[in-house]
Amino acid sequence: MDTKDLAERILNGERRALARAITLVESGRADHRAQARELLAHLRGHGREALRVGLSGTPGVGKSTFIEAFGMMLTGQGLKVAVLAVDPSSARSGGSILGDKTRMERLSRERNAFIRPSPAQSHLGGVARRTREAIDLCEAAGFDVVLIETVGVGQSETVVAEMSDLFLLLLAPAGGDELQGVKRGIMEIADMILVNKADGDLKATAQRTCADYAGALRLLRKRPQDPQGFPKALTVSAVEEAGLEAAWQEMQALADWRRESGHFAARREGQARYWFESEVRQGLLARLETKRARAAMADLAEEVAAGRLGAAEAAQEMLEHHLD
Amino acid sequence: MDTKDLAERILNGERRALARAITLVESGRADHRAQARELLAHLRGHGREALRVGLSGTPGVGKSTFIEAFGMMLTGQGLKVAVLAVDPSSARSGGSILGDKTRMERLSRERNAFIRPSPAQSHLGGVARRTREAIDLCEAAGFDVVLIETVGVGQSETVVAEMSDLFLLLLAPAGGDELQGVKRGIMEIADMILVNKADGDLKATAQRTCADYAGALRLLRKRPQDPQGFPKALTVSAVEEAGLEAAWQEMQALADWRRESGHFAARREGQARYWFESEVRQGLLARLETKRARAAMADLAEEVAAGRLGAAEAAQEMLEHHLD
Repeated sequence: MDTKDLAERILNGERRALARAITLVESGRADHRAQARELLAHLRGHGREALRVGLSGTPGVGKSTFIEAFGMMLTGQGLKVAVLAVDPSSARSGGSILGDKTRMERLSRERNAFIRPSPAQSHLGGVARRTREAIDLCEAAGFDVVLIETVGVGQSETVVAEMSDLFLLLLAPAGGDELQGVKRGIMEIADMILVNKADGDLKATAQRTCADYAGALRLLRKRPQDPQGFPKALTVSAVEEAGLEAAWQEMQALADWRRESGHFAARREGQARYWFESEVRQGLLARLETKRARAAMADLAEEVAAGRLGAAEAAQEMLEHHLD
Repeated sequence: MDTKDLAERILNGERRALARAITLVESGRADHRAQARELLAHLRGHGREALRVGLSGTPGVGKSTFIEAFGMMLTGQGLKVAVLAVDPSSARSGGSILGDKTRMERLSRERNAFIRPSPAQSHLGGVARRTREAIDLCEAAGFDVVLIETVGVGQSETVVAEMSDLFLLLLAPAGGDELQGVKRGIMEIADMILVNKADGDLKATAQRTCADYAGALRLLRKRPQDPQGFPKALTVSAVEEAGLEAAWQEMQALADWRRESGHFAARREGQARYWFESEVRQGLLARLETKRARAAMADLAEEVAAGRLGAAEAAQEMLEHHLD
């Protein structure tokens, strides 16, 4: 593959080239990895700085309806929007989020929108790497906004927040004062909370839920990366397409403030460092995944389980003699 | 150091030799690690199979009073008892649990008891390895029961359960039906629950709490490694030394059943495999901790943060050129 040619076509905004490049970074094959690194090196420093918006919400909060309505509003303003997904369950289901493009039928037909389902991967770490690289590719292809969607399960919110400039939590209206079991750790990384379904019978409940969360956010934290009045909780209605413009204005205001104060660049730098370090660790541990290493691990584990070899000795033997 | 001689002295039950050997396995120095592996190899297959009892309880449940009373009862029966600790906070505090031997004044004076504070370590993984090796040393020195204590914080219960034959949860009497915020995951790994402080004014509350937990255990699970009637919840009083004999009899009954059914050996085999595999991973990642590797990591992270190098490229560079 001519990665230089592919890079040029991506920089020209060719969608098929972008799709092909994402397929390349999703591949686990060693030769594909080498090509992916080459391609990313060609692209580095070109393209534009998109606003990377992470979005988490449990099933049923109307995530795809929101992304479609929000994406349509952005493309309506002439902005180019890419939608990626980090799906912790994709190993089992073969890609459950965004797998069905009909979920965002209008947006997927938009010239200025690009929707990519989550890669089916065996573990969240692998999905994270591929998504980070896909974000870089989307920026090279000239997208203005990259939305990274995830369902709020396990560690996936943290993974997505680690690759976003802004991390949004999408919630449903809830009765009572229980905060929908949103974990404190998630409240701490949310840059903005959007309470969806503020329409029809649920409108009042949505507003009350929103006020509850706004209060909780004020109580919970004061972070240097939040200007006066942030973090905010807002209501939106994806089905009525209400509140989306306001939400977008708040996101831009927050991003602008962070750009000027240096927090935006600092966050990206921290993320890049973290990404590099986890790439190194993953690359090192990958040495245990070769055919030869796996066979030796299995044999030695057998010896250890049978009590014929100590764990520390066996580990030493493994590291000294059975790695390529 | 003559590790063969040290091994013989440990097998003879010399306490000073045991203490010295534990200091050796706690050391992070490469030459000490090599000696520790040698020593453990000499000892393998000798010594006796102790009953390894993990014990977790949050501060205030009376953990040290319980261990002292329970340990005294065991030594009173002619059994040799070792007490080790896994302290997730020891990195900061320099060893907060068991650090003060006066907490178990009577037991520490017993000829057949051996108490060892948690090593001060930078991370839980390191503490886990050293404690596992200390258990092996205690078995070689002829101890019948090895108690491994931890405060219930973060991952430390799981770490201790992974090195125990029986994992006990020590709880305080609690008002109401709230289950003291015990996480479901912990309930699932507990082999027995002991509600302490079943004395004086708290006796009735302790019995009610015990009944609540017994009910919760029945609802929560059915595991093949639990015989009819297990997992059990019992009340004890460490200060009145009540219920300790009964608890010990239940522990033995459970251990005996598991020995006969094969679950005891299977658990130890699984733990040994897991230990070996984590030793390999830790050993591999230790290659990033040399002076040279750390310097290269720092330089490359700087390049990545500044956008002059991509994360994947930089990781490749690190793995190919900067590891010993």
